[in-house]
Amino acid sequence: MGAKTAAVLVIGEEILSGKTTDQNAALLIKELRSLGVALRRIVVLGDVRAEIAQCLRELSASHDFVFTSGGVGPTHDDVTMEAVAEAFGMRLLRHPELEQKMRAFYGDRLEERALRMADVPDGVVLLDSDHLSWPVPVVRNVHVLPGVPEIFRRKFMAIRGRFADAPFHLRELLVDADESAIAGRLDQVVAAFPGVFLGSYPRFHFPNETPRWRVKLTVESKNAGEVERATAQLANLLGSLVVPPDPAA
Amino acid sequence: MGAKTAAVLVIGEEILSGKTTDQNAALLIKELRSLGVALRRIVVLGDVRAEIAQCLRELSASHDFVFTSGGVGPTHDDVTMEAVAEAFGMRLLRHPELEQKMRAFYGDRLEERALRMADVPDGVVLLDSDHLSWPVPVVRNVHVLPGVPEIFRRKFMAIRGRFADAPFHLRELLVDADESAIAGRLDQVVAAFPGVFLGSYPRFHFPNETPRWRVKLTVESKNAGEVERATAQLANLLGSLVVPPDPAA
Repeated sequence: MGAKTAAVLVIGEEILSGKTTDQNAALLIKELRSLGVALRRIVVLGDVRAEIAQCLRELSASHDFVFTSGGVGPTHDDVTMEAVAEAFGMRLLRHPELEQKMRAFYGDRLEERALRMADVPDGVVLLDSDHLSWPVPVVRNVHVLPGVPEIFRRKFMAIRGRFADAPFHLRELLVDADESAIAGRLDQVVAAFPGVFLGSYPRFHFPNETPRWRVKLTVESKNAGEVERATAQLANLLGSLVVPPDPAA
Repeated sequence: MGAKTAAVLVIGEEILSGKTTDQNAALLIKELRSLGVALRRIVVLGDVRAEIAQCLRELSASHDFVFTSGGVGPTHDDVTMEAVAEAFGMRLLRHPELEQKMRAFYGDRLEERALRMADVPDGVVLLDSDHLSWPVPVVRNVHVLPGVPEIFRRKFMAIRGRFADAPFHLRELLVDADESAIAGRLDQVVAAFPGVFLGSYPRFHFPNETPRWRVKLTVESKNAGEVERATAQLANLLGSLVVPPDPAA
């Protein structure tokens, strides 16, 4: 569809073991969509440096933008910066601007150990914003964000405008038929409109239910005209199987 | 920790574009944890056969169990079975038992196209259960489950008992200090108990708040005695920074 692409890497054993529920990938799903950026992959990993490094190397090479969540605090399980450095063969350096910010904020309470948070890969770019007291470190196309959801949101929103692209166009059709009865007709539309993404989503119902519709079809592309033409062909092929949209809730 | 390991692959453009919210990885996070299985990685991908195949090959080689969600219906965007076959260099074959089940269920209404759902890799094992009208296909260590949450849950629950392992033991400590003030002490415990997983989770609070605690520490392992000893050392090192648990909500 010619969209910019993105991948999200959520770092944190606490998500995988169910101690906390991820909110950050969920935010990016919504925001990237509204920005017109195609989110192509989400990965959730524990706090294992080598695994994070390898994953980041792959994600960075195959997407326009990569966002990481978590692992940027001062404790032993915060290994994201080391992993980013390892991914790109860079060294960790204590960044003078970050060190100064920490000294100004913590004053006498600053513990030497906490200065780990000023250590960033030598290829870093720091994104500043009026709304942020601490910049967002970017290494190549990897944007390093913290795991705490309130702070993740504030930081992403401060840099959100950089990623804006042309919007997606979407049409939906509700169909009163099983997927297997319409699969052949969907194939025809897919073949006729290779630049359009056609989704087919069956709805769950119990055997004793007679739902008004059984499958939701979605037609989408960055090209609004293509979406209209593909939707028209689909509606034509499905005829009376298409039912009106559900009334607004 | 000597636990069995698992990975989850959620397949579906509809998750990445925000049309639906994943419920299946969330279910597995909870269930695998209670089974004593260490979930090590979650990946969410679109309906792209080559990407799914490559991902499955990697996940299968590095985990004891792999679970996939989605992409098993009859339409053009259902490519999971082809991807599993490609991942392991197998061929897709029409399985006589599955074909017979479909013919019995659909009768005259069966469309040839729908028989795609009876096509499985030639190395498949079908897990049957009294509670299931359709078996769970397993290829090597990959368990192929459907995306519709109600059916995913029913199928996983029917085979859940196969994965039971020794339980995890967990202790928590609440600490009234910033992470940076205690990071050095955490390092000591990590060094003393290499088989124990020590998690450190800062709590968000606004600058004008004075929370009762600032960091939650978790101590866990399959070895209950190690958890008790590591927790005791941690409590000893932190002294009066440890605060009592929150009252039950």
